[in-house]
Amino acid sequence: MITVTAYDWVPPFAQGLVRDLRIRWALEEVGMPYRVELISIRRKPADYRQWQPFGQAPAYEEDGLRLFESGSILLHIAEKSAILAPQDGAARARMISWVFAAVNSVEPSLQNLAEVDFFHPEKDWAKARRPVVVESVKRRLGALADALGERDYLEGGFTAGDLMMATVLRIARHTDLVEEAGLGDYLRRCEARPAFEKALAGQMGDFKAG
Amino acid sequence: MITVTAYDWVPPFAQGLVRDLRIRWALEEVGMPYRVELISIRRKPADYRQWQPFGQAPAYEEDGLRLFESGSILLHIAEKSAILAPQDGAARARMISWVFAAVNSVEPSLQNLAEVDFFHPEKDWAKARRPVVVESVKRRLGALADALGERDYLEGGFTAGDLMMATVLRIARHTDLVEEAGLGDYLRRCEARPAFEKALAGQMGDFKAG
Repeated sequence: MITVTAYDWVPPFAQGLVRDLRIRWALEEVGMPYRVELISIRRKPADYRQWQPFGQAPAYEEDGLRLFESGSILLHIAEKSAILAPQDGAARARMISWVFAAVNSVEPSLQNLAEVDFFHPEKDWAKARRPVVVESVKRRLGALADALGERDYLEGGFTAGDLMMATVLRIARHTDLVEEAGLGDYLRRCEARPAFEKALAGQMGDFKAG
Repeated sequence: MITVTAYDWVPPFAQGLVRDLRIRWALEEVGMPYRVELISIRRKPADYRQWQPFGQAPAYEEDGLRLFESGSILLHIAEKSAILAPQDGAARARMISWVFAAVNSVEPSLQNLAEVDFFHPEKDWAKARRPVVVESVKRRLGALADALGERDYLEGGFTAGDLMMATVLRIARHTDLVEEAGLGDYLRRCEARPAFEKALAGQMGDFKAG
């Protein structure tokens, strides 16, 4: 049996963005049953860091194997099925390049935007810094749009690389930056997948009234 | 034959930190020969983004397979040898968790520190923001130190997870933060590996006088 941790509540700006969404989505794609273990973001279980060293959600358990980091869990699940990982070795390696591109070349700039807009919106330094952050986001999204070109997905059909990239692009949903970069159709194409819709409904349904 | 791209020059603060170091180190560990293709950080080849979508170093080519993102290239190399990847499936999956932890849970806060200290040191917003960034770095390094505990490496023996984490910790080399977090011995243990020393000498030796 598979267990995924998730928060029982987060502030509205983070609802639909917490990273367990990536794992729920992947598990819905490959059709594997799982249970969700809800934890409080304010009072995490005392021993939770033995499972997730940085104290975040998601963490993952499968038959005694405990994993953390959404990218790592996603690759672990992707290996189980041709739905998320091409079977050809070269195509599979490029899928992994896109998963890392999402979390290491695109997500950090979007997280910095979220930090400015949601965590320190009233601070003078955040207001002065925001144009630098937006410029960085535009550069990364522009490069991504150029790489995507006229294709529907980053490498042939939908892969775990698109799954990860789509969840990263969602971080900018409070802005028009994804649309302006020409990535709106790509994001909507990924979000239209039934497995995404189930995963999102799962995360949202697990939040208690705050 | 394997080709890795690297810069022919970067400013002194970045020398010894450019991410091709991770790939040189991995290739030295597994003993695979490679050639380095030097590119100019200011005038990249016109078609370079067809190889590396974000225009950065490193990019990687092996018998026609083109990969990008140091994390992805590292996992690709790690699969070739037991030196970087445990052969047991569960231990291998946890190694991958640590590679992602390095690039997605630790590196972003250290990159923000580098941004403040090297890219915008004179800006008022950077000075006002710096304590927030340092606090974030301390939280992440403290969590990493707790996870490491009294062990020599993150999971059993040295793996690609330690390789990636060590190169990430080096980003804070202009501060005492790694030492203060109790991770100095761990970093020195990783850097003492002959393959690291060869990789670092390779990167440094490829920079022309700037």
